[in-house]
Amino acid sequence: MASDKVSKLADCANRLRVTSIEITAAAKSGHPTSSVSAAELVATLFFDEMKYDVAKPKDVNADRFVLSKGHACPILYAAWQEAGLIPREDNLKLRHIDSDLEGHPTPRLNFIDVATGSLGQGLSMATGMAYTGKYLDKASYRTYCLLGDGETAEGAVWEAAAFASHNKLDNLVAIVDINRLGQSQPTQLAHDLAAYARRFEAFGWKAIKVDGHNVEQILKAFAEARQVKDQPVVVLAQTYKGRGIEGVEDLEGFHGKPVSAEKADAIKSKLTSKDPLKWDVPKPNYDAPTVDLKLGQNKVGTPNYKLGDKVATRAAYGTALVKLAEQNSRVISLDGDMRNSTFSEQLWKKIPQQYIECFIAEQQMVGAAIGLSCRDRAIPFASTFAAFLTRAADQIRMGAVCFANVKFVGSHCGISIGEDGPSQMALEDIALFRAVPGSVVLYPSDAVSTEYATELAANHRGIVFIRTGRPALPVIYNNDEKFEIGQSKVVKKSDQDKVLIVAGGVTLNEALKAAEQLAKDGVNAAVLDIFCVQPIDRKTLLEQAKRVGGKVLTVEDHYQPGGIGEAVSAALADETDIVIRRLFVKEVPRSGAPDALLDRFGISSKHIVAEAKKF
Amino acid sequence: MASDKVSKLADCANRLRVTSIEITAAAKSGHPTSSVSAAELVATLFFDEMKYDVAKPKDVNADRFVLSKGHACPILYAAWQEAGLIPREDNLKLRHIDSDLEGHPTPRLNFIDVATGSLGQGLSMATGMAYTGKYLDKASYRTYCLLGDGETAEGAVWEAAAFASHNKLDNLVAIVDINRLGQSQPTQLAHDLAAYARRFEAFGWKAIKVDGHNVEQILKAFAEARQVKDQPVVVLAQTYKGRGIEGVEDLEGFHGKPVSAEKADAIKSKLTSKDPLKWDVPKPNYDAPTVDLKLGQNKVGTPNYKLGDKVATRAAYGTALVKLAEQNSRVISLDGDMRNSTFSEQLWKKIPQQYIECFIAEQQMVGAAIGLSCRDRAIPFASTFAAFLTRAADQIRMGAVCFANVKFVGSHCGISIGEDGPSQMALEDIALFRAVPGSVVLYPSDAVSTEYATELAANHRGIVFIRTGRPALPVIYNNDEKFEIGQSKVVKKSDQDKVLIVAGGVTLNEALKAAEQLAKDGVNAAVLDIFCVQPIDRKTLLEQAKRVGGKVLTVEDHYQPGGIGEAVSAALADETDIVIRRLFVKEVPRSGAPDALLDRFGISSKHIVAEAKKF
Repeated sequence: MASDKVSKLADCANRLRVTSIEITAAAKSGHPTSSVSAAELVATLFFDEMKYDVAKPKDVNADRFVLSKGHACPILYAAWQEAGLIPREDNLKLRHIDSDLEGHPTPRLNFIDVATGSLGQGLSMATGMAYTGKYLDKASYRTYCLLGDGETAEGAVWEAAAFASHNKLDNLVAIVDINRLGQSQPTQLAHDLAAYARRFEAFGWKAIKVDGHNVEQILKAFAEARQVKDQPVVVLAQTYKGRGIEGVEDLEGFHGKPVSAEKADAIKSKLTSKDPLKWDVPKPNYDAPTVDLKLGQNKVGTPNYKLGDKVATRAAYGTALVKLAEQNSRVISLDGDMRNSTFSEQLWKKIPQQYIECFIAEQQMVGAAIGLSCRDRAIPFASTFAAFLTRAADQIRMGAVCFANVKFVGSHCGISIGEDGPSQMALEDIALFRAVPGSVVLYPSDAVSTEYATELAANHRGIVFIRTGRPALPVIYNNDEKFEIGQSKVVKKSDQDKVLIVAGGVTLNEALKAAEQLAKDGVNAAVLDIFCVQPIDRKTLLEQAKRVGGKVLTVEDHYQPGGIGEAVSAALADETDIVIRRLFVKEVPRSGAPDALLDRFGISSKHIVAEAKKF
Repeated sequence: MASDKVSKLADCANRLRVTSIEITAAAKSGHPTSSVSAAELVATLFFDEMKYDVAKPKDVNADRFVLSKGHACPILYAAWQEAGLIPREDNLKLRHIDSDLEGHPTPRLNFIDVATGSLGQGLSMATGMAYTGKYLDKASYRTYCLLGDGETAEGAVWEAAAFASHNKLDNLVAIVDINRLGQSQPTQLAHDLAAYARRFEAFGWKAIKVDGHNVEQILKAFAEARQVKDQPVVVLAQTYKGRGIEGVEDLEGFHGKPVSAEKADAIKSKLTSKDPLKWDVPKPNYDAPTVDLKLGQNKVGTPNYKLGDKVATRAAYGTALVKLAEQNSRVISLDGDMRNSTFSEQLWKKIPQQYIECFIAEQQMVGAAIGLSCRDRAIPFASTFAAFLTRAADQIRMGAVCFANVKFVGSHCGISIGEDGPSQMALEDIALFRAVPGSVVLYPSDAVSTEYATELAANHRGIVFIRTGRPALPVIYNNDEKFEIGQSKVVKKSDQDKVLIVAGGVTLNEALKAAEQLAKDGVNAAVLDIFCVQPIDRKTLLEQAKRVGGKVLTVEDHYQPGGIGEAVSAALADETDIVIRRLFVKEVPRSGAPDALLDRFGISSKHIVAEAKKF
């Protein structure tokens, strides 16, 4: 190995160290010690191993790099400074409110694919990118993911590890910066590299141990990784936190603390030159296909149902998914061993290469979906029971910070699933997805609207949640009805309406039954199908509420917090003369027949009738 | 080994099979195939290995059993029928709305410690029980956890595995029912027992492989497990899904499907007797100490702050936690490598044996906390950044179904954390915890109220969330102020108030500044410290809202959905003449100085003043 290459990269590593120390010192906050432990790893990756074009850091052909240990972003920003992308003066604005160089990286930056900073998520996202490269793009770009040692305590890392080996992702390299120290103490495994190796090997990976401050060993490891077939590779790098910083290196108590810029002087004195080094970064192979994610309107075609036919919305989702996937090979379904319940199975049966099985690992499913969506390579639809999407709540939260283009489909919402009981009932899923800023939350109530909801989701850029249900419900819309994001539907009204009932899914069906009963009892009720919970259709709600004299009753198969009732209450809270009452599930439910449960937990037509009459 | 014991247990296994088939056939739903694969394992556990008293299944001295694969509960109910606890006629009401024998087990049953059914959580809970047995109770009871093979894909299992070996839980035995088939397909590892063994061994466990339908091998494995010191043991059992059911065994397509009761006939014909078998279950060693979780009021004593002193609520939490822990040795703190940020470090420094380090594994922290709380052995306080509690959202959801007595403390809420950026900012945590039915959500705004909040949490049975913040805020309450669950505080009022500002934490501080400015501008504003977000203090809110003429302005360092504004809007939605406006964080925030962020994202005093004037 050319010793000038090695010494140049070692010099580069020290340059990155200096920058990391200086920019966090300027910011008066940040994580220099977690940055400098990875200096040789990052230098070698960015200036020898990875193929990219500095002018187009997110070119579809370029290698991907995920900094799973997001708090170490100073070393990443330093690398891009060294590469010529980030001016030094920009880096000196690290963590300022007007700088996109944030405390943890986000895709506001033109070289970042995924936001990180909630630990243990980067590898999942990286597996999504590597899967895309190997199986969808069939291109030669590779994916690198740098993890901290502490974050390997997160289970999500092992979900990702299993996925990567199961799918033979030999274009994926994980690098663990084993610097021994967590935030508050040494990690569980400290510098026991053999233990790390056993874990990764047991999960099907090739493990290569290196001295993480030895460039030559790192170069050899990456070269060896390129030779491995049908298996992901992990480079386990023994490093020292705060490496090179006098009085700090390998000591506890310095996590997330800047050190004075003078601490960089000793490192500076080792540098061969003050001038930027010249780099000839290898360019990518330009072999990734052009991809167009556009579907246009009406890609599900006109649905084909008869009014009154009973069809579960989850089944209609499966039907629509296949139609979309047939139109665009980048519509990809992911599921967590629930495909025969969520009906993503329909796609798996018809076009298995557009289906990714994630097994019972919802965090991995969501992380991989985010990875798939990067650089506009795919429109992922991730489905499982809506209750189990809570397992990936943090990944969904980070999906928001990623500004990800992922569609989530949660089936088996609410108590109407029946006998399986509360562990399987989603009663907080609307709240979960409403809390994603800018998200769209669709809650279709029949098969026709579900097919259109699926199409709307595919056509909308951003995070969309579709809530589907288990029970078969009557088709209430004509096949050519038009649906829009941000639009609710008035499904029943008359000139004598005294109350507006707002509902969705199974409760819309109950509301329609209740309205019939109420009409017989001389109380006419308008019924509104919420359809789009977010953005909420305030205009229609307000119009209809005023039209009926200000009496609104919401009813939902969901807990109160963050649900339909609160969304409607909030939307209309600045109106006087509107009174809102809410029916929702008030306590932990139980097993039972669906109808019996709707009754027991206060959201059946009987309760709607009674509450409407109370007005 | 006595062959009569072996044949009796084998006979018992078939009896459990028959019951599992019959009760799911009667229910017309359920999971017989996932039950019968574990028949020999459960028979051997319940009628030879475990020590308990059928009359007191949850005696503190008895061995613990966690059915992590909760959908297999028919086999568990069958075992308790065989033991004499559940009458057969009760089991025949499986999954009926009036039966506590639900589709997945919950602690509504007197032999269940923790609800399961969301897969991959049972082992975490079991580690909490085993930790309690070994380190708190120092008693001889053992903990057994039966997992499905499919659920080992969940990362939470590996977090638990790491915790168990790190803490040398040699009183814990996991049993994996490796029946090869998931819900929709074969599992990733199918019958590759060696691969399972490598994974558990790599995570520090002793692994024992058995034929899971061979009682003699199972007995030997449990005997061997008892000899292992300082290491948890996993029994890896090769089994067949639907074992013994003709036309079903080892075939795909039968997950979660009952089979006709006649399918049990072939198994019945093998039974040695129709009469119940006689069992002499070994009784526990009665060596667990008596524990009293009572703290009584005023156990933090009177706090000791000066009005106006600046103290972060997270710091006051640490102070109160130590006081409580000094009063009761069963006040236990768990943290996820954040103790120096959440201030649980104060307890770790003072009484390390009442602190459990969970490293960066929030799911494990929450699962273990639930396990610790079982059988009234401890009052666990689980703390980390509030944002990272979303990683355990599903465990918290299941904690509700467990009716668990766990205290959650989430620090670093909201954008007021500043430069670390959105990945670290909790902006949906109030919604997350409000969605736990019956939960208490406390959001103290100064050091005094934080100390009392911590005491209230310890004294309240059930799930409590305390939201603490990063910035130091002025002390606004006298040390002897009284706080109650369900009570908000009016912290500023006058007879000329024209608007009520409702706030908490950093926004209360902003609200008070705004009220000063507004008073100067001739608009008097009342300010309400929400303190307890759930149950909400509707009475005070309504009184104050009416008093000021119906104009309410909420302001919160949280997203809108499920937050304070929606909670207040919902609480007052059935009142006319009250108008509510809300300030909250509307988009994904970014890094920056805390004050600059409050301003940029619309929740600073400046915005409160402007919005109040709009009324």
